Order: sequence, then C-alpha cells, then structure tokens
Amino acid sequence: MRFFPLLRDRDKMRRRRSKREGRPEVVVVGSVALDRIQTPFETRRDVLGGSLTYAAMASSRFAPTGIVGVVGADFPSCWMTLFEKSGIDVRGLVSKPGRTFRWSGVYENDMISRRTLATELNVFADFNPKLPLEYTSAPFILLGNISPALQVYVLEQVRRPRFVVADTMNLWINTQRRLVKKLVSLVDALMLNDEEARLLAERHSLSACAELLLSWGPSHLVIKKGEHGAMLFSRRGIFLVPAYPVTKPRDPTGAGDTFAGAFIGALAASGRVSDGAVRDALVWGSVMASFCVENFGADKLAMVGQRNIVRRRRDLMRMISV
Amino acid sequence: MRFFPLLRDRDKMRRRRSKREGRPEVVVVGSVALDRIQTPFETRRDVLGGSLTYAAMASSRFAPTGIVGVVGADFPSCWMTLFEKSGIDVRGLVSKPGRTFRWSGVYENDMISRRTLATELNVFADFNPKLPLEYTSAPFILLGNISPALQVYVLEQVRRPRFVVADTMNLWINTQRRLVKKLVSLVDALMLNDEEARLLAERHSLSACAELLLSWGPSHLVIKKGEHGAMLFSRRGIFLVPAYPVTKPRDPTGAGDTFAGAFIGALAASGRVSDGAVRDALVWGSVMASFCVENFGADKLAMVGQRNIVRRRRDLMRMISV
Repeated sequence: MRFFPLLRDRDKMRRRRSKREGRPEVVVVGSVALDRIQTPFETRRDVLGGSLTYAAMASSRFAPTGIVGVVGADFPSCWMTLFEKSGIDVRGLVSKPGRTFRWSGVYENDMISRRTLATELNVFADFNPKLPLEYTSAPFILLGNISPALQVYVLEQVRRPRFVVADTMNLWINTQRRLVKKLVSLVDALMLNDEEARLLAERHSLSACAELLLSWGPSHLVIKKGEHGAMLFSRRGIFLVPAYPVTKPRDPTGAGDTFAGAFIGALAASGRVSDGAVRDALVWGSVMASFCVENFGADKLAMVGQRNIVRRRRDLMRMISV
Repeated sequence: MRFFPLLRDRDKMRRRRSKREGRPEVVVVGSVALDRIQTPFETRRDVLGGSLTYAAMASSRFAPTGIVGVVGADFPSCWMTLFEKSGIDVRGLVSKPGRTFRWSGVYENDMISRRTLATELNVFADFNPKLPLEYTSAPFILLGNISPALQVYVLEQVRRPRFVVADTMNLWINTQRRLVKKLVSLVDALMLNDEEARLLAERHSLSACAELLLSWGPSHLVIKKGEHGAMLFSRRGIFLVPAYPVTKPRDPTGAGDTFAGAFIGALAASGRVSDGAVRDALVWGSVMASFCVENFGADKLAMVGQRNIVRRRRDLMRMISV
C-alpha cells in the first residue's frame, strides 16, 4: 500500500487562491445546480449540486482546482463563499441574470435506481465554457457531463494538457453519437457508468466495450459501477477499483462526479500519470465518493476531515488485502 | 500475495479414493441435476449440474472431497466416472430407481437474470442425506442448497467439524424461516446472494443485513454478488472478494456453488481457518467461479488445467493491487 504526497493543506491553498495568482493544477468544467432530491426516507430542496460542484469539491481536497461553469442571479452567496473557502479558484464561474440550473429526482427503495422528475436548464441552457486565460495551461482537465460540443470546445482552448478526463451521459450518446466519438478520441480517460458504456459501444460484455472504446483513442477507460466500485481498463490491463461499503447511504447524487473529481485531483497531486498513480488516484476517488453518498449535497465534501479521509482509505485497503 | 500449499495432485487423490479408505477432508451435500439451460445464444439439454456437482467438482481440485446426494437410474454412467476420475469420493452418492432431478431455466440478455422454467424433483423429492460412517468425522462441511431440515439433519450426523458452510435460497427463507434461522445458528459461515441476504434479514443495506445475520451465530457471512464479486463479513471486519472479469460468459449456472466448493476445498487444503486463510480461500472460490461461467455444465471444472487456475489467480491479484 502506497500513499500519496497527500492532501494539500487547505489553508495554504485558500491563501494562494485568494491572491488570484497562478494557474490551477486542475480545471473542472460542468454544471452547478440547485437540486430537489427525494429518497425513500427524506426530501431536500435547494441542495447544492451539479457535476461541477461535486467534482470540484472533491478535487480541491487534493490539488488547486479551477472551475468553469455558470450560475444564476439566485445562486446563494453562501455557496459561492463555500467554493472560495474550499480553496476553489472561481474565476471561471460566471454569474448570469436568470435562475440557476435546477434538477429534481427521486430515488427508488434500493437507493440506486433514480428517475428525473424535472430539469430546468435556465442559465445553463446558454452555457459558454470560456476558460480564463490562466486556466488554459492547466495540466489536468476534467470535462464533466455537458454536451460533447462544449467539451470539445473546452479542449480547443487548453494548451497541451497532461491528462484529460471526460464524462458523458446517455442523452448525448443517443443524440450526438458522432460528437461523443470525436470527444472520446481526444481524451486520455473516458469515465462512464456501465449502462452508458454498453450504450456507447453497443456491446454487452464490459470487456468487449472496453476493447472497442479504447480503440477509439483514449489510453484509459473507467467504468463506474456504483456500489460495486469501478473498473479501469488500460493498456496495462485491468484494475478493479473497490467501493467502500457505506452502511447507511442517504443520497447517492453526485457520487460519480465526486469519484471523477477526487481522481483527477489526486492524480494532479501525485504529479505522475503512471499506471500506479492512476490506480492510487482511483482509490482516492472511491474513498471520496463513499463520503459523498453519506449525506445530501456537495457541501459535506468540504466538511469531512482529512484524518477521516485517510482513515477510510486505510480501511478500504484492508478490505481488499488478501 | 501469498499462495496456498496449492492444489493437490489429482492423480494421488484418485488413487487414494480408489482405495476406499479414510475420511474425506471435505463433505459436500446438495443436489445432482440434469439441466436444460437456455441463454440468449444457445440451448443445452442434459447438462451435468446441481449444487452438489458444481461444489464438489470445485472442491475436489483442492482437497479430498466426499459427496452426499442422490441420482436416478437414468444418470449417465459417464458422469459417475467423471466424479471418480476427479478424485471425488462417491460413497455418499446414492442411486435410486426413477429419474434424476431436472431443472430447466432461461437467462435474459444480461446473462444474469434468470427464470426457472421447470423443476422436476424426481428422486430428489425423497432425498435422505445419510452420511457414510467415514464421512461423519470430516472436518469441513459444505451444506449446499437443500431444505434447512435436511441441512440440520446432516449436521446432527457429523462429529465436531472444524468449519461448516451453508447455502440456502429464497424458497426456504420464505417458507421455513424458523428452520433457516436455526441452521444459521449452527454453522460457521453462511453463504447467500445479496437478494437472499436482504430477504432473510429483512433489511436493505448489506452491512445492516450482515450485522443481524452474524448476531444469529455464524462467525462468517459471505454475500455473493455475481459478476461484482462477494463480500465477507466477520468479526475481523469486511473483505471485498473480487470477481475475475470474464470476457465472454456462456452459462452462469453453478457459479455460486463453484465459489462455495472451491472456498471450502481451498480452506481445507490450507489446514487453517484463520482470517487470512478464509480470505485466501475466497479468492480461490472467485477464480474457480470465473472458469465455471465460461462454459456449460460442471464437467469443465474438471478440464481446466492447474496452471491456468494458478495463472488466473495471479492475474486477479494484479487487478486488485494498488
């Protein structure tokens, strides 16, 4: 078991960010949302969510992170303060007149299957992910789930990134397959859930999906399987990413984005993109995702103590050691 | 990564068995069946199956194994020969007038969900698992999925076993819950799939199920999750058993029984029942189960070479090493 140079000191990062100098190590693009989430046990309104939020809150625990997104005039200033206090570089977060993107969904009894009840795009409908100049030389890029055209547009703005990760969803696979395929060819790692991988590759077996998708260009494919962990397929073989068994999940929303965010943040913190560093970073992703599902919203990712994170990783490593 | 004293030499075992002397290390009780299996790709008739068959074919790769079961007069002698050639002690396998137990099922496109089309109990309806005298002092017992009353009856015949594993199914949990509970209190390890664990514990979270089921008496609970591996819960914590990702599964029938059989066989071969030995044995279970799903019937477990088994375990260990 190897450990990272470890989570950076947040106070230092905060100060560095507040000086508004330098480029972030990680740039995350995606949505910021106010969610209405219904589980079999409770309902919450105006929960801080969105792929960008979850990913950035997780990534910023590991490396200086800049975000590219849009919020409406109704976006509560307390959340903006939270981003800044978490050491997140918000220069790329634009505030527009109008309402913030809103999503509402309900989880079934299994706390896994979910139905979307409503999606109000609002200011997100005209999202134009223009990167601040300082972001364009960031070495680690996470393209959260937005339209593949916008994801490609972001890539056109960055200068020789070291590692680009992209997420996508069934909507884009169904409606803009050609663009998704182009996107896949441009990134280092594609991150999907099992259903999306099958939809995109049009095959059932995940190994067969992996073989095809890797042939399109990326060196890494990560297939997320929720409570069952994830699988990394690369030229170096397969890595089975374990999931920490959460005793009482309260809200699974954002687990995948948290996983991706912690992954890219930890990879940036390690300063390497070797097979070992990628595996290490995926385990951090798994650890952070397990905290994510234990409560509502992304703010909890700011609350969990560094000691708890490290302890959980150690526990998880014990659970897979033979 | 540690390895076992390793798979015993089958020729030696065969000779030992043919002398009809001594007690087996492992005794397996369960069903022997002739199955009709339909997958999205092919249909096979008169496939050698049943929980006892799969478990014993797997266990016998690791330790001298005796079986307790019943077959009809129509049971092909070639399969009996296969058992004997595999070094299995068949003194406890009774042949009765009438037809062998038959099961017929169909798998959905995902190759996981299945429907039972028909069950003909035949000679299995009056199955009386009477142990040959030499079996009663066997140290490792695997109670395959038969009625809990019969499983308890088997336990009444054995003298101070070192480790008893029991499997069960939703039918018994729904119809004979009290007896299943009694059985659970008598064994060292209960092995169930996730659905059965939830049904038996009447809770959703697997951790919560584990807490309750362990409070009934067993020191180990193994929850099988098919292609997602398995989880061991014990007083020593949780162990996440990885599943080897099979590229082209052809028939998932018997994977769980193979897993259980290889587990008890490998545990017997190790001669220990420590936490480490249990984890090790579960990985062997996972490895053998992965071979099981690659083809129809239990006979393939006899075919796969020892070198392939060891190689696959090594590959699997690489897939989980961080």
